[in-house]
Amino acid sequence: MGATSALPEGQDQIAGKTNDTHRSEALSPSSPVVVFPDDAPLKLESGQVISPLTIAYQTYGTLNAAKSNAILLCHALTGDQYAASVHPVTGKPGWWEALVGPGKPVDTDRFFIICPNILGGCMGSTGPVSVNPKTGKPYGLDFPVITIGDMVDAQVRLIDHLGIGELFSVIGGSMGGMQVLEWAARQKKRVATAIPIAAAPWHSAQNIAFHEVGRQAVMADPEWRGGNYYEAGVVPKNGLAVARMAAHITYLSEKALQGKFGRNLQDRAARSFSFDADFRVESYLRHQGSTFVDRFDANSYLYITRAMDYFDLEAAHGKLANAFVGTGTQFCVVSFTSDWLYPTRDSKAIVNALNAVAANVSFVEIESDKGHDAFLLEEPEFHATVRGFLNAAAEKRGLDRPGGLA
Amino acid sequence: MGATSALPEGQDQIAGKTNDTHRSEALSPSSPVVVFPDDAPLKLESGQVISPLTIAYQTYGTLNAAKSNAILLCHALTGDQYAASVHPVTGKPGWWEALVGPGKPVDTDRFFIICPNILGGCMGSTGPVSVNPKTGKPYGLDFPVITIGDMVDAQVRLIDHLGIGELFSVIGGSMGGMQVLEWAARQKKRVATAIPIAAAPWHSAQNIAFHEVGRQAVMADPEWRGGNYYEAGVVPKNGLAVARMAAHITYLSEKALQGKFGRNLQDRAARSFSFDADFRVESYLRHQGSTFVDRFDANSYLYITRAMDYFDLEAAHGKLANAFVGTGTQFCVVSFTSDWLYPTRDSKAIVNALNAVAANVSFVEIESDKGHDAFLLEEPEFHATVRGFLNAAAEKRGLDRPGGLA
Repeated sequence: MGATSALPEGQDQIAGKTNDTHRSEALSPSSPVVVFPDDAPLKLESGQVISPLTIAYQTYGTLNAAKSNAILLCHALTGDQYAASVHPVTGKPGWWEALVGPGKPVDTDRFFIICPNILGGCMGSTGPVSVNPKTGKPYGLDFPVITIGDMVDAQVRLIDHLGIGELFSVIGGSMGGMQVLEWAARQKKRVATAIPIAAAPWHSAQNIAFHEVGRQAVMADPEWRGGNYYEAGVVPKNGLAVARMAAHITYLSEKALQGKFGRNLQDRAARSFSFDADFRVESYLRHQGSTFVDRFDANSYLYITRAMDYFDLEAAHGKLANAFVGTGTQFCVVSFTSDWLYPTRDSKAIVNALNAVAANVSFVEIESDKGHDAFLLEEPEFHATVRGFLNAAAEKRGLDRPGGLA
Repeated sequence: MGATSALPEGQDQIAGKTNDTHRSEALSPSSPVVVFPDDAPLKLESGQVISPLTIAYQTYGTLNAAKSNAILLCHALTGDQYAASVHPVTGKPGWWEALVGPGKPVDTDRFFIICPNILGGCMGSTGPVSVNPKTGKPYGLDFPVITIGDMVDAQVRLIDHLGIGELFSVIGGSMGGMQVLEWAARQKKRVATAIPIAAAPWHSAQNIAFHEVGRQAVMADPEWRGGNYYEAGVVPKNGLAVARMAAHITYLSEKALQGKFGRNLQDRAARSFSFDADFRVESYLRHQGSTFVDRFDANSYLYITRAMDYFDLEAAHGKLANAFVGTGTQFCVVSFTSDWLYPTRDSKAIVNALNAVAANVSFVEIESDKGHDAFLLEEPEFHATVRGFLNAAAEKRGLDRPGGLA
């Protein structure tokens, strides 16, 4: 299939792009993009197609001559391609710099890291903010509902385009972990190792419930305008902020919230007997909500949460183990003890399914108070696990040996 | 102090009042009311006063001659005085009919039950929807911020008015349990027994966080109009519905949601690839949100959640045990295993504080999958606990014996 592309240029293009709005990044991203033209439409699970398809992505490190050291990073709900480089809108460090970089567990001196913005996202890959070729206007709600599998199929296009046959590893946390599972299920010959982290093989009723609250909050905002807010030059920021606040609670453990904030007051000595943000946790949540709307598209939030709700690898395959029949992938499944969004129980379901097909799988439950967000944070045991797994697998495959695959 | 009152008339007044809006019930309730006029203002913890003060309440059963069989029921966040009779707005059975009635654990054949609508509520007691005597218009945000202690002080007025010295018991779940604790702390001579159920001695950071999401959802609704929606004849129903949806998730356990809904689809055979309520849990939550706005006032929701957030019996007394020094009350503390809103840990903190002052306390953790809402539902072990505790205490006090107190 044909594709036009800007070659990966690492972080060079980012300078000067901070403080742009996310809208301009959605339409003209700082990162490289690959565009698959109309003769190569992406067929979706819904039966609809997306064409043209743009995938924005960032790379870190260098692809070796054998193209055997490529790792795909799959980002979570509100993540993006800027895993290990400055975010062009917020100016903040990449969301996974704790894990990814020179000498870090996902070592950019050793591996070539590819991190695409997901289909449906708002940082340059095709999503609801993109121009609908049929109307010349932003898709809005004319964007088709997508699935985690569709996101993976779009990523497959990118990997094909980069000329990479087999990925040394596919790694992701949360929704990124769901993509890892879909990669393993859909591309059995192309995934040497896989690390699904703080993930689940299906979205539970409670998971769906929290997402539905967020969607209703967005849709209740009159500025959402049935999804057509782009042309009016407005943003349903109040609704999106409420959605983010509700979701953010689920990312932290009760203990983390208590330890971080407790009942401490914010910049005051006593209760104000008002609806001000008396408590630090209120102030923190409001901040989370208000900063989020500056970097994220409300419709993208709707589509991505919907894709997560639709995710059910068991239903798609009759039984979960069937998803992995014939797999040659080596898995490292990671969960965190205080994660109540995708608890260890969910990771164990993945492990049980893998064991049922005699897959090569290790499972590590990390002791952590930090809740679901632990996968983004400094967690030495988690980082040691990822480092050890990747290094051992690289060694086994001769990635570093003189005369090896590198 | 002076007070005018309609005598308790049980359920007689309710016929024909169903399907009224909650607004008319707020201003002219179906239940009896007592009005404390301007010469008896209620002084609040904030230093402000409320005057006149109206308390709407419902009673069940008959007060004995010695006035020794009175039980005060304290309702939760969105409860009201209709614990064991038809709700005048919704036409549905009372919220605690599983527990309260003839021959039931809280036996109306034996006890005289008083259930007031809380201060700040919207079913007839003074709250933000009431007329502000200074302006002749609804209080709205001119209503003072109240506390759980203020609610209890208002209830004390009602009990005084009814000529009852000592309450045989004070019983409540969730926020009702917080009121029970304040009663025990503030009125040590007037509470013979107390049953705080699924309660906490303080609101945690996570509790505050969920409430703040709800408040922000209400306030984000343009129809909220800074709290002055009454005169415009509108209701911030979208915001309030989102608040209710988010809160409702916290009332159920993850297991209850999974068992009740799982990933089952609602009235369809396959995913719609849309933002319809594909999943039953979505449909259920939307229903919870939309029906709630028909029976509850948005500003009341703000004030009551604020009162709960401000609740911290430990901070108020230096240490929690100090709240109960000198208590003669006999306590039965009840928690539910799957309650993650006010988990057993919170009840144990209450029990530990009571033990530290050598109070008479029994503690029962009920095995239940139903989450926080278990206190409202058919839970045989819970009901047996309440029945047994009340009957034994009544027996001990000679309530039923010929020649006894009755």
